Amino acid sequence: MTLPSDILDKNRKTLVELLLKEIPPELNLASIEFEGPEIVLYVNNRQAIVKFLDTIKAIAKKIRKRVVVRASPDARLPPEEAKKKILELVPKDANVDPNSIVFDETLGEVWIKAEKPGAIVGKGNIIRHFVLAETGWRPVPQRASPLESKMLNTIMSNLLKQSKYRLEFLRRVGERIHRDVIFKNNYVRVTALGGFMEVGRSAILVETKESRVLLDLGINVGAIHDPLKAYPEIDLDAIRVDELDAVIVTHSHLDHVGVVPLLYKYGYRGPTYMTKPTRELSAIMIQDLIQVARREGRDIPFGEKDLSTMILHTIPVEYDEVTDVAPDIKLTMYNAGHILGSAIVHLHIGMGLHNIVYTGDFKYSSTRLLDKAVSEFPRVETLIIESTYGATKQQSRQAAEQQLVDIVKRTIERRGVVLIPVFAVGRGQEIMVVLNEAIEKKLIPPVNIYIEGLINEVTAIHTEYPEYMSKSLRDAIYRGENPFTSEHFKIIEGDVGRPDIVEDRPSIIMATSGMLTGGPAVDYLRLIASDERSSLIFVGYQAEGTLGRKIKDGMREITNVVEGKVEVLKINLEVHSIDGFSGHSDQTELVRYVLNIKPKPRNIILNHGEPNAIYTFARLISRAVRDPSSGYQTVPNIFTPSILDSVNLTASR
Amino acid sequence: MTLPSDILDKNRKTLVELLLKEIPPELNLASIEFEGPEIVLYVNNRQAIVKFLDTIKAIAKKIRKRVVVRASPDARLPPEEAKKKILELVPKDANVDPNSIVFDETLGEVWIKAEKPGAIVGKGNIIRHFVLAETGWRPVPQRASPLESKMLNTIMSNLLKQSKYRLEFLRRVGERIHRDVIFKNNYVRVTALGGFMEVGRSAILVETKESRVLLDLGINVGAIHDPLKAYPEIDLDAIRVDELDAVIVTHSHLDHVGVVPLLYKYGYRGPTYMTKPTRELSAIMIQDLIQVARREGRDIPFGEKDLSTMILHTIPVEYDEVTDVAPDIKLTMYNAGHILGSAIVHLHIGMGLHNIVYTGDFKYSSTRLLDKAVSEFPRVETLIIESTYGATKQQSRQAAEQQLVDIVKRTIERRGVVLIPVFAVGRGQEIMVVLNEAIEKKLIPPVNIYIEGLINEVTAIHTEYPEYMSKSLRDAIYRGENPFTSEHFKIIEGDVGRPDIVEDRPSIIMATSGMLTGGPAVDYLRLIASDERSSLIFVGYQAEGTLGRKIKDGMREITNVVEGKVEVLKINLEVHSIDGFSGHSDQTELVRYVLNIKPKPRNIILNHGEPNAIYTFARLISRAVRDPSSGYQTVPNIFTPSILDSVNLTASR
Ligand SMILES: [Zn+2]
Ligand SMILES: [Zn+2]
Ligand SMILES: [Zn+2]
Ligand SMILES: [Zn+2]
Ligand SMILES: [Zn+2]
Repeated sequence: MTLPSDILDKNRKTLVELLLKEIPPELNLASIEFEGPEIVLYVNNRQAIVKFLDTIKAIAKKIRKRVVVRASPDARLPPEEAKKKILELVPKDANVDPNSIVFDETLGEVWIKAEKPGAIVGKGNIIRHFVLAETGWRPVPQRASPLESKMLNTIMSNLLKQSKYRLEFLRRVGERIHRDVIFKNNYVRVTALGGFMEVGRSAILVETKESRVLLDLGINVGAIHDPLKAYPEIDLDAIRVDELDAVIVTHSHLDHVGVVPLLYKYGYRGPTYMTKPTRELSAIMIQDLIQVARREGRDIPFGEKDLSTMILHTIPVEYDEVTDVAPDIKLTMYNAGHILGSAIVHLHIGMGLHNIVYTGDFKYSSTRLLDKAVSEFPRVETLIIESTYGATKQQSRQAAEQQLVDIVKRTIERRGVVLIPVFAVGRGQEIMVVLNEAIEKKLIPPVNIYIEGLINEVTAIHTEYPEYMSKSLRDAIYRGENPFTSEHFKIIEGDVGRPDIVEDRPSIIMATSGMLTGGPAVDYLRLIASDERSSLIFVGYQAEGTLGRKIKDGMREITNVVEGKVEVLKINLEVHSIDGFSGHSDQTELVRYVLNIKPKPRNIILNHGEPNAIYTFARLISRAVRDPSSGYQTVPNIFTPSILDSVNLTASR
Repeated sequence: MTLPSDILDKNRKTLVELLLKEIPPELNLASIEFEGPEIVLYVNNRQAIVKFLDTIKAIAKKIRKRVVVRASPDARLPPEEAKKKILELVPKDANVDPNSIVFDETLGEVWIKAEKPGAIVGKGNIIRHFVLAETGWRPVPQRASPLESKMLNTIMSNLLKQSKYRLEFLRRVGERIHRDVIFKNNYVRVTALGGFMEVGRSAILVETKESRVLLDLGINVGAIHDPLKAYPEIDLDAIRVDELDAVIVTHSHLDHVGVVPLLYKYGYRGPTYMTKPTRELSAIMIQDLIQVARREGRDIPFGEKDLSTMILHTIPVEYDEVTDVAPDIKLTMYNAGHILGSAIVHLHIGMGLHNIVYTGDFKYSSTRLLDKAVSEFPRVETLIIESTYGATKQQSRQAAEQQLVDIVKRTIERRGVVLIPVFAVGRGQEIMVVLNEAIEKKLIPPVNIYIEGLINEVTAIHTEYPEYMSKSLRDAIYRGENPFTSEHFKIIEGDVGRPDIVEDRPSIIMATSGMLTGGPAVDYLRLIASDERSSLIFVGYQAEGTLGRKIKDGMREITNVVEGKVEVLKINLEVHSIDGFSGHSDQTELVRYVLNIKPKPRNIILNHGEPNAIYTFARLISRAVRDPSSGYQTVPNIFTPSILDSVNLTASR
């Protein structure tokens, strides 16, 4: 058999020798490759794979690595034959679409779209492995969504086109991850590059003696005209793109992922780790950012090409799965409860030297869509926690839902239109579920719910990844009760007659943008603003300066310029603002998280908040952790860094 | 005329164009070169130089640069002719040694050794310039010291041998300093690399968007067996030797300069800035460090070659003189009052964006040897202050002197020997001045004062640089009353009969090492330990674990192995320890410095102290600056960083 193409350094040599000793000769090993965080065994005897699955699992556990088995290229059936075999092997109720079976010759993978992708995998991956044994192709199941995501299709077909490069890329990353190091790390430090004492442009650099990893790399969209405030401090010398080991993205909001394409434009060719939903949603968000900027004639320092490069170098990870991202850093992502695919990042550093939990944005209570954020970890020495609502309390989710249903009910009763401006990614899907359930439970009459804007594309992504949603929602979807495909939803695409839609009374309209800064929502508002029977309901944050904020604060006249003419609009509809739908933990939840997290950290670093939120939160937890019943044996260090401060986590203080 | 050899970038082009416009044609300019921080005008008409001195001074002021005029090589007299001319021109009472006139053809300098080097310079540099005009050689006066420094001679002859390389080096540095930058700096941050929450291995990295500068780079000699604690964190990625603009050394103690040679071993070829006395004393200290390590069979990761490389790349600066060290950083050194040549560093960054004062080690009261540290600066936003005695008060200098004189007097009266262990660089010269004055003033009888060890070499350096000592001492030396050449001092060199010396009773012996860890002091102690009439006087800090500390703490028996035999020594002599001779500010002086500094900083960073000293000092000043009468309009931020923490000085907090 052949060893990896290049000369092995010591670390990989040891691993390979260990593997050679353990792998049953019957498999007839062709080669061993390090591809990204995975070690891939290419075997000639594909039929033997299933027999030795447990053996290989045991080996993987022993060497604490992700081990994957593939048939060597010579041991694969020709695609047409393989396709026939697959259609035989896969259970009928998976509902495979025969026209969407696609072969990736470089990676030896076959992508199979099915209505029930889980059936392709089978319990304990058993069917997946049967397909591999019988055809030599490794099946990658995909969900045939009832709502088609254009973005996902584009991403997948691009990845397929570039699969040769991608294999090279993965092998390069694999080498880097498993490079030799001396494991006598003596420090771990984090540097605030953005999103400290502020919200927007989140970015944290984690450095050890061996490695450098970025946690998030966001843009402050609100400050986009001021490069000094819009982008994180990535021209700091500590970030040299050629020596960066990994970018880790918690979720798809632009304040966390928006600047990653710029890094690739600067020449970064290393991996970016995120969940699959985050990859898809990020692509949607960033593409929209670029397109809006172009439409408005604003400069943005990267384009769609850089976004594609980012996607090409993205390595998806799943919740609760341990992944090597550097010789001395293991990454695990946990559910953050914030938006679809959002993650709390856990870094295990230097064979136990230090463990970091970075919450990203998180919600420490369950919602319709998502389970509550995880708060238990194998180890934690440092907690980096978001503080958006460090100074704000919100009403409960139940109260918020009740308030929404009440307003909608009253508006329907008087035959008005309910307009709910929504963000593309965030609360939109949540509100959809609430409204649908309210109709099902007959709390409100069955009216049409019109949905227009980017939110539809995002809903499609949700239906592709039920496994990232709350257990109850996921189970409902598996049972075939997908709330997003409810008959009550009317998806508006292309140039429709909005004036006709507002004539369908009573009805509900959900449209972007969430703060009335543009998009169809503004158009709908113009059409119903003067109607006293209708209602405008804000369910999200309205930033200073936006039309949404002005109306929320009491402005009752809008001046618009439409086709050259000045139009003054009286606002006679009811205006409501409902708090409690936020995807962020409120003050009470934040403090509770610090008290509940297991085990207890000895450093707590506050980020993602305005100074008032940060300092209020710091004061609260500083008091809380001193309570003998708090569970904190020793008082942790609390840090409130500013941008470009670094904190040495391993210093004794 | 020729422009600098390489293609000029914009910044230097602008400077050159400005100069070309302003320089009188009569000078007949041959070329303009950027040599280190200086701009050198090479002129063909050397006779015209004196006439235009004021013009050139005005130009220098206008462009805010150091401008130096030299005759072009073609316009210089042949060395023999020049020598004759020099002996004619220089006032007779300078007492020039004709055999020590040395020509450096590459730099166009002539080194002239004289008893009164000031006479070669003349008031307002006038004689210096006459020599230049008449011979074409730029005179560099040197003091013919009554005590010869071997180290200084070695340094000077090495520099001469390598003067061609040095010219290339200076031009390379000149290019780098005047490189093009966009002056829109938006941050200044400092990183603690060593000497924070501890004493030893002082090192601070200052970073701007354009530049990187190191302040000090010391070794923790006490931890020399543990590389993780002995050396600063210079393998941090932020320090890339090829992108470092400058190393700035405050003074010659090993905890501030000891690791600079290692940087050159790592490949650094940029400049190190320090005062001339610091250069000479550092060479002595580092050479001793290397030799002792070799003698004791200990590993030290650099050698004499690296020390020479450091000296070769050292650019001397004088107190109160502004020097460009990076495109956006100007350095000024001020008297620190700690040891000869010690400096407080002032950095003026980014055309006024930020100003840093770093005290290094400093004494905020005057001593026999040195004036009190400077506390007034053009601007200060950040003060980085040493905290060695943040938790300790010391008696006054007068009280300490009185105590010393009393003990010596009593010992002499009973015909004993006074043994004073001293550090090579530090209090030795101070004690010498005190004892000499006491004899002159007849406070004690005129006994012999034997001096042995490295202290003698250091005393020689002191007499070379009277301009770095206190005004009163300097004036005395100019008047010919050099206390260091007093007849009472008997300098012991080579293998002398120490038993004979202790027979000269009564007498005083000053010898290294200061903590009785080795050196002649230990030998002398053995000889007089059992003698009840004699006295042992500690005048400096005795570190944990040293023989000095044990005796100070009450141990009255020493077990020695001499030539294979175990020898038990009873200590019967009187043991005294006098505080108040320290070169560090004590607690009261530290607090007073924070209150007196002008203008008032808005950030105060504490370093160079054990945690207890740091926290005590932080508490004291945090209270002091809140007093309305403190002069602080707003309460400054007080930082107590650990190693590898960074502080963004320009963040709004
Ligand atoms: Zn978010
Ligand atoms: Zn966020
Ligand atoms: Zn010192
Ligand atoms: Zn020191
Ligand atoms: Zn000191």
